[in-house]
Amino acid sequence: MRLARSRNAAGTTTPVVARGERWFDLSPVTAEVGPQTLIPEALARISAALDAGELPEVGAPTAYAPPLAGIGKIVCIGLNYTDHAAETGATAPAEPIIFMKAPDTVVGPQDDVLIPRRSVKTDYEVELAIVLGSTARYLDSPADARACIAGFAISNDVSEREFQTERGGQWDKGKNCETFNPFGPWLVTADEAGDPQDLPLRLWVNGEIRQDGNTKNMIFGIDYLVWYLSQFMTLYPGDVINTGTPAGVALGRPDKPYLRDGDLVEIEIGGLGRQRQTFKAA
Amino acid sequence: MRLARSRNAAGTTTPVVARGERWFDLSPVTAEVGPQTLIPEALARISAALDAGELPEVGAPTAYAPPLAGIGKIVCIGLNYTDHAAETGATAPAEPIIFMKAPDTVVGPQDDVLIPRRSVKTDYEVELAIVLGSTARYLDSPADARACIAGFAISNDVSEREFQTERGGQWDKGKNCETFNPFGPWLVTADEAGDPQDLPLRLWVNGEIRQDGNTKNMIFGIDYLVWYLSQFMTLYPGDVINTGTPAGVALGRPDKPYLRDGDLVEIEIGGLGRQRQTFKAA
Repeated sequence: MRLARSRNAAGTTTPVVARGERWFDLSPVTAEVGPQTLIPEALARISAALDAGELPEVGAPTAYAPPLAGIGKIVCIGLNYTDHAAETGATAPAEPIIFMKAPDTVVGPQDDVLIPRRSVKTDYEVELAIVLGSTARYLDSPADARACIAGFAISNDVSEREFQTERGGQWDKGKNCETFNPFGPWLVTADEAGDPQDLPLRLWVNGEIRQDGNTKNMIFGIDYLVWYLSQFMTLYPGDVINTGTPAGVALGRPDKPYLRDGDLVEIEIGGLGRQRQTFKAA
Repeated sequence: MRLARSRNAAGTTTPVVARGERWFDLSPVTAEVGPQTLIPEALARISAALDAGELPEVGAPTAYAPPLAGIGKIVCIGLNYTDHAAETGATAPAEPIIFMKAPDTVVGPQDDVLIPRRSVKTDYEVELAIVLGSTARYLDSPADARACIAGFAISNDVSEREFQTERGGQWDKGKNCETFNPFGPWLVTADEAGDPQDLPLRLWVNGEIRQDGNTKNMIFGIDYLVWYLSQFMTLYPGDVINTGTPAGVALGRPDKPYLRDGDLVEIEIGGLGRQRQTFKAA
């Protein structure tokens, strides 16, 4: 299934679900796509309602809000693709690098992204986002991770590189600007996402391809990441993990083509849909 | 006023407010102490309800939940006291160091704190917490900050030092373990908190004083911090800023007295109440 939040003309949202190319109104089952919608029992109930024909068919959404309301926390993994670590001049990390993004940075996949005032190094990062459906706390092994994953989505882990690394201290300073996490369009349940360790990720700026990677090139795979994180923090349903970006970011290119007012960014991950954002001055 | 959430025997909470030594049930005005309770109009309505005698008087709470439900984000400031920067071997930062703590780490001021599995360096940090009551976005100057502050509370910014600094990358790895942010007992509104830049902060472990500082020794004061943060992220009502800790943490002491199963930590900040936590193995 693909879960989404259709954005209506009035600014309200409707929870919807797709099976194949057909879309259905989720409202009879849940008023919102939230953390509790993602627990295994709730996903099973939605699937059963589809089977039973209980959900009214609707047209495909024309505009998307972020596919999950009430995100608890967003944990981000740094330098998790060998080629990206190399392009930034960093050595591949010995264990996952963790930083955090506040859920209030999340916007829809087609919403404008604001370039912060006084920013000169706003950058893009296509990432596979893991969405949790069960609590993960001190998992015994990576083999226990998959049962905790509800599904996957696209994140653009927008970053301001000067804020991130040249203004003292910690990366979070360049990761938490408003609108810095376009998310969606869909949350694709794990059973329909294919092999999440073999998904192409691509990102274009003004029609020019800038990132062209594959999740098979992650240094730490998704099962390892969920297991690893669960040793340091408790992950809950509705938490999101941005799993890192492949090569091709502006920081890693010789000409440093940071984003400017008016730039159009488009993003695809195989099976997870497409984002399209205009960057604008804040 | 002091806002709090009284924890009842059944595990539920009741919103309460104190004026002086008298406590009142806030339920007639709001079902919860949440972000929208902190906006200026809502605080004025509570004050008016107290003036009008509309709130039933109740006994002082015997147990406290965290004084704010629905915290949006917790932004933390690192190395913000000269004496603490010195004890950790760091130079005083040229501008504020920012890191993040997930709201799901918050527990009540008397709740147990869990020492993570495989932790050998769990540490304490008494901190003045700022609670936002209005949106702060690109403030023009620190003089605009005070109008955005609803009040103040105590945070214990519990930290695992090995996770924080010896496991690769970013501090967040040692700051987001479950239960790592005891908060409360009260949210004291700004008009009753006195001069927030002249508050004594003290912390004891098993009755021995370990931290004995004053908020006047912050490197970056609270108005500067709110203004500064607003250049990098948008702060919303219900967001919390942990403003850093004075000297005396275990990391800074010659004998490195990290916390052990059964240790009792007590914390006071002038006018903001008292915390008392037992540390237990996770």
